[in-house]
Amino acid sequence: MPHIKLKDGLPGIRGPMVFSPETTKPLGELAQVLLVGPNTLTPAEREMIATYVSSENDCHYCQQCHGSTAAQHLGGSDDAYDLICRVKEDFESAEISEKLKALLNVAGKVQQGGKKVTSADVERARAAGASDKEIHDTVLIAAAFCMFNRYVDGLATWQPQDPAIYVEIGQQTSQLGYTGRDFGKLLQSVEAVPR
Amino acid sequence: MPHIKLKDGLPGIRGPMVFSPETTKPLGELAQVLLVGPNTLTPAEREMIATYVSSENDCHYCQQCHGSTAAQHLGGSDDAYDLICRVKEDFESAEISEKLKALLNVAGKVQQGGKKVTSADVERARAAGASDKEIHDTVLIAAAFCMFNRYVDGLATWQPQDPAIYVEIGQQTSQLGYTGRDFGKLLQSVEAVPR
Repeated sequence: MPHIKLKDGLPGIRGPMVFSPETTKPLGELAQVLLVGPNTLTPAEREMIATYVSSENDCHYCQQCHGSTAAQHLGGSDDAYDLICRVKEDFESAEISEKLKALLNVAGKVQQGGKKVTSADVERARAAGASDKEIHDTVLIAAAFCMFNRYVDGLATWQPQDPAIYVEIGQQTSQLGYTGRDFGKLLQSVEAVPR
Repeated sequence: MPHIKLKDGLPGIRGPMVFSPETTKPLGELAQVLLVGPNTLTPAEREMIATYVSSENDCHYCQQCHGSTAAQHLGGSDDAYDLICRVKEDFESAEISEKLKALLNVAGKVQQGGKKVTSADVERARAAGASDKEIHDTVLIAAAFCMFNRYVDGLATWQPQDPAIYVEIGQQTSQLGYTGRDFGKLLQSVEAVPR
């Protein structure tokens, strides 16, 4: 049961987002800029960074939502969902670019603590072709999910276990993003998530 | 030296904020709502929560800035600065309300990880008079500083050691907040911080 009274039937972050619209606005805008906005990293790559950090933080809701969103950006096939699992389990052996591996390594250090990121970690990313902006964005995506994960788990939100729910959420989020009228309607609707 | 090329002379988060204006906008708005906006917790209380979490995350810049801002909200005396030090060292024995002690306890759990917050932690806060909104805001302030601290340290930003600089920053921030035209001008100016 959540630690505070949240609207029934809203999974994960959607409960606190409806509870606190004044913080939801900047949080949604941050997610939109970081994960959806124009970037030399694809939405799938950025969602994979978010997913990996959420997995390291053991946040079921966030890793399932963003993993599913990443898989949907990659076409939504079983192979896409399998790739996301392999990224979470051992990204160094997954079929992703060397640049993304190096950025996931940076993100993993940020998850442990900001001071864990070394010059060697950053040099590896740069040698694999990462720009200063891509390194910056990776650090901020990883840092932001250390916030989102704690927000979701720190309030003990309802986190469904049925994988089909996260397929649906991934389809919604990969199409609607994290802001805008349609996303706002989705956030308010308890019917949006099958139970 | 910072991990990426940042404008010289800007301390802590101000370097990355100038580097990435599109993320600075929602980050500033989030800080403004959480720390400055209308709330039954005073700005000083909210800045103390931010300071304590930043101290637990060992982020020198954030704990000094927000500690100084909290002290300025309390009048800026030596006693006010001493109180902030005691909150960081052992808030249970500091001269603050039982409600704030209970909320700092929740914040400390969030810093360790969202799942560390127990029903007993939340019950203690509620028994001391905390509302659902105050508990929500405490969780989100603590979670947000797990982001801000990692952003500042994960990019290896310049963090001045001279305490006088943080007195100045605390005076600026307690007056200007974290958004608006004057704050934007401050952010851009390398002359804003004495060196």
